[in-house]
Amino acid sequence: MFKGRDIVSIKELSKEEMDIIFEVAREMLPIARGERKSDLLDGKILATLFFEPSTRTRLSFESAMHRLGGSVIGFSNPSATSISKGETLADTVRVMDSYSDVIVIRHPYEGSARLAAEFASNPVINAGDGAGQHPTQTLLDLFTIHQEFGEIEGLNVALIGDLKYGRTVHSLAYALSYLGANIYLVSPELLRMPSHIIRELKEKPVETDKIEDVIEDADVLYVTRIQKERFPDPTEYKKVAGSYRITSELLNKAKEKAIVMHPLPRVDEIEPEVDYTKHARYFQQAFNGVPVRMALLALVLGVV
Amino acid sequence: MFKGRDIVSIKELSKEEMDIIFEVAREMLPIARGERKSDLLDGKILATLFFEPSTRTRLSFESAMHRLGGSVIGFSNPSATSISKGETLADTVRVMDSYSDVIVIRHPYEGSARLAAEFASNPVINAGDGAGQHPTQTLLDLFTIHQEFGEIEGLNVALIGDLKYGRTVHSLAYALSYLGANIYLVSPELLRMPSHIIRELKEKPVETDKIEDVIEDADVLYVTRIQKERFPDPTEYKKVAGSYRITSELLNKAKEKAIVMHPLPRVDEIEPEVDYTKHARYFQQAFNGVPVRMALLALVLGVV
Amino acid sequence: MFKGRDIVSIKELSKEEMDIIFEVAREMLPIARGERKSDLLDGKILATLFFEPSTRTRLSFESAMHRLGGSVIGFSNPSATSISKGETLADTVRVMDSYSDVIVIRHPYEGSARLAAEFASNPVINAGDGAGQHPTQTLLDLFTIHQEFGEIEGLNVALIGDLKYGRTVHSLAYALSYLGANIYLVSPELLRMPSHIIRELKEKPVETDKIEDVIEDADVLYVTRIQKERFPDPTEYKKVAGSYRITSELLNKAKEKAIVMHPLPRVDEIEPEVDYTKHARYFQQAFNGVPVRMALLALVLGVV
Repeated sequence: MFKGRDIVSIKELSKEEMDIIFEVAREMLPIARGERKSDLLDGKILATLFFEPSTRTRLSFESAMHRLGGSVIGFSNPSATSISKGETLADTVRVMDSYSDVIVIRHPYEGSARLAAEFASNPVINAGDGAGQHPTQTLLDLFTIHQEFGEIEGLNVALIGDLKYGRTVHSLAYALSYLGANIYLVSPELLRMPSHIIRELKEKPVETDKIEDVIEDADVLYVTRIQKERFPDPTEYKKVAGSYRITSELLNKAKEKAIVMHPLPRVDEIEPEVDYTKHARYFQQAFNGVPVRMALLALVLGVV
Repeated sequence: MFKGRDIVSIKELSKEEMDIIFEVAREMLPIARGERKSDLLDGKILATLFFEPSTRTRLSFESAMHRLGGSVIGFSNPSATSISKGETLADTVRVMDSYSDVIVIRHPYEGSARLAAEFASNPVINAGDGAGQHPTQTLLDLFTIHQEFGEIEGLNVALIGDLKYGRTVHSLAYALSYLGANIYLVSPELLRMPSHIIRELKEKPVETDKIEDVIEDADVLYVTRIQKERFPDPTEYKKVAGSYRITSELLNKAKEKAIVMHPLPRVDEIEPEVDYTKHARYFQQAFNGVPVRMALLALVLGVV
Repeated sequence: MFKGRDIVSIKELSKEEMDIIFEVAREMLPIARGERKSDLLDGKILATLFFEPSTRTRLSFESAMHRLGGSVIGFSNPSATSISKGETLADTVRVMDSYSDVIVIRHPYEGSARLAAEFASNPVINAGDGAGQHPTQTLLDLFTIHQEFGEIEGLNVALIGDLKYGRTVHSLAYALSYLGANIYLVSPELLRMPSHIIRELKEKPVETDKIEDVIEDADVLYVTRIQKERFPDPTEYKKVAGSYRITSELLNKAKEKAIVMHPLPRVDEIEPEVDYTKHARYFQQAFNGVPVRMALLALVLGVV
C-alpha cells in the first residue's frame, strides 16, 4: 500500500492510510525517544535535498532515519550544488536518486516535489515546496491531535493568526475538515484564509477576528506566527499581533483539556508562561515530527 | 597492493590495478544499489575535506561509505575552517587524519592532494585538485565503458566539446590511450586539447572540429560542457555550442551499440530526448561513482 | 555520577571526576585510533548546535560519536536556523533536545551553554561559549599532560603568548592550579593574564615576559597564538610575535622530557622544524580530543 510510494500532497492520503501512518508512528514512539533501538532501515540511505534551509524539518528527518539505523546524505545549501551551474532539477534528482533509497525534498517553488517524484525511481517525500504542500507537517499536526484525543472527528479546532500566507494551516484545514473536525478560523481581516481554501472544506467554517469568540469551545488552539512584513504600518502590526497572543490568563477561559499547538518557530505569539501550563503541546508536537517521519520512511521503504 | 595507499593520480595505477578496482566495483554493484547490506567498513571513518564545493563527488563518496557501513565526517565550506585563520593545509590534514581512517580531499590548487598525502598517515584519495587530477572520475568513466563493452582496448572513443579546460577529459584521454583505445578529439578550434596532453598519448589521436566526422565510427561519445565564459563573443558561443549538441537525430547515424557519456552537470550539450534512447549512459555513469568509490575505499582500507 | 549530567564548566569537576574521565579516555584510545570497534552508543544521537563555526571541535565530537557507533545530527551555520527568524535559544534547544540524546553547543555568547542545559532534558556539553568556558578543550589538554607524565601535581607548566584574550589558557590555568601544577605565565606586557584569573589560582604564579626565564624549568610549554589584531601597530606585533616563537634552537635549552603543546590552529608561533623534535605534542593533543570526548559522551549517556 505504501511501498515505493511518493508522499507529495496530503490530499493523496485516505483516512485509512492516515490511520496506518498514525498507528506505525505510535509504535515508533519508544524508538524515537531513544528508549529502544531499531535497525529497521540498516543499510538504507536517505538523501535530503534542501534547496532552501529548514533546519527543523531536515534534522527531524535525519533523526528519524538514524533512529531506525539508516544513513543520511544531502545538502542544505543549494548554492553549493550543480543547480548553480545550470543543471535542471530533473538531472539533480536522477543523480541523487541513484545514490540513495529515498529522497526528501524541500524547494522554494510549488510543484518541485511532484517533478522530483516523476524523475526519481525511489520514493520522494515532499518537505515543503513553496506555496504548495508540506504533508509531513500536516501529518505530525494531525498525529499530535489524534494522540491527545484519540480521534479527530467532531473536535473543535481553531486556526489562529496568519491564515492567508501560512502554508501549514491551508493543508491542515483541508485535512481536519476531511477527517470531520469543526474548523474555526481566527484572524485579522487582512490575513483571512483564502476563499479557494475555504471552498475545499467539507463544512463552512466559523470565521471571526476575535480569539475570545472561540476560546471556550475550542479543543485545539492552533497558533501561527503573524509576520511583521505583512503589514504596511508597524503600529498596525503591533496592535494586531498583540490581540492574537495566547496568554495563560486567556487560557483560564479554555476547556480543561484544550491544547495549544504551534508549528514553531514562535516569536511572540505565545507567552512563555504558557509553556508551563497543562495546555502547551507545541514541543510535543515538534518531537512528533520524528515518529511520524520514521513511520513514513519505514512505510515507503516497505519495511513495515 | 592497495592497503594504505594514496590515490592521487590516475597515472600511478597500472592496468592490472585498474582491473582489480573494476572487479571489486563490480562485486559492489548490488550493495551500491541497496539490494544487499554490507558492514565491511563498520567502525571506519571517512573524512571529506572539500575546500571547494562539489556536491556530486562528495555525496557519492558519502553514499559509498554508508553503503559499506562506515561513517563520514567533514566539511564542504572552507570558510568555516581553520584555514581561514591562517592554518597551513599540512596542519589541517594532520589533525583530520587523526580523527579518521581515510581522507578524501578536493582543493582548488594543483598539488594539494599530493601534499595532503605526504602529511597524512592514513590513505588520501584525490577528489580533484584544480587543474590537476581527479582520478576517481576517470576510474568511474573507465568502469562505465568497461562494463558496457567488456574491455577498453580497441574501442573508438570520441571526446567532444571543451577539450582545453576540461580536467576530466585530460586524465581520461591519458588513461584510455594507456589502455589501448583509439582516441578521437572533437572540439572547436578555440578549445582544442593542449599539445602537452596529446604528447602523452600512445598513438596520435584523430583531431577534428566536426562531430559528423566521428559519429559513425565511435563506440563512445564522451560529451563535455562548453562554458559560455570561454568565448569573448556570446554569438560565437551560441553557434559553437549548437554545433556540438548531441541530438537523437544525430544518434541515428551512430553505431547500434554506441553510448553517450557526460560527466554531468550538463546544460544544453545533450538534447533531453536522448535520455530515452538506448544510447544514454550518463546517469548510469553518475551512479557508477558509488561502486567505484566503494571499491577504492575498501581497497585502500585493506578490507578486500 | 556522570549519567545525565551537563558539562558546562571545568570548575564543576572534582579531581576524582577528572581522574575518571582520564581513565575512561585511556580505555577509549584503541577505539579512537580505529584499531578496535565499539557499539557502546549504537542507537544514540548527538545533536551538534554550532552557532559559530569551529570545525575542529565539531568534527572531533562527530568522530567520537561515530567511533562509539552513534549518529550525529546538527548544524554549523546559524544563519540557516530558526534563530534567524527570531526564535529564542531556549526554544531551539528544547526542539533539538527532543530529536537527540545529548547536545553539544558552541555559541558566541557567554552563558549560552548554561541556559541550554537548563532547558534541555538530556545532557548538554559546552563546546565553547564566547569568553566563557570550553571544558572539553581543558580536559583534553590535561589528559595530554597526564598521559605524558602520569600526573599533573608538581609539574612546571608555562603558559606562553596571549594570556589576556585566550579563553583556553584561562580555564587551563585554573584547572592546572587546582590539580597542583606550578604555573609560569609568559606574555608580552600588553597581553598579560587578567588579575581576576590569577586570583583564582591556588598559588601565585611566576610572571615574566621572557621565554628564556622559563625554558630550563618547564615540563610543559603551552603556546598560544598572538593575534595581529591585538596590536595597534603592526611593527610592534612583529617584534612581539617573533620573541615568543618556539624554535628547535630554543628547545635545545629545554628539559629532556619537556613537551610543547598548542590548542591549534597555529600560525607562526611554532617553527615547523619543531614538529620533528621529540618535544612536539600538539598533534597528539589534537587527536586526544577524540578519546576525551568519547569518554564524556559515554559517561553522560550512562553507558560506562
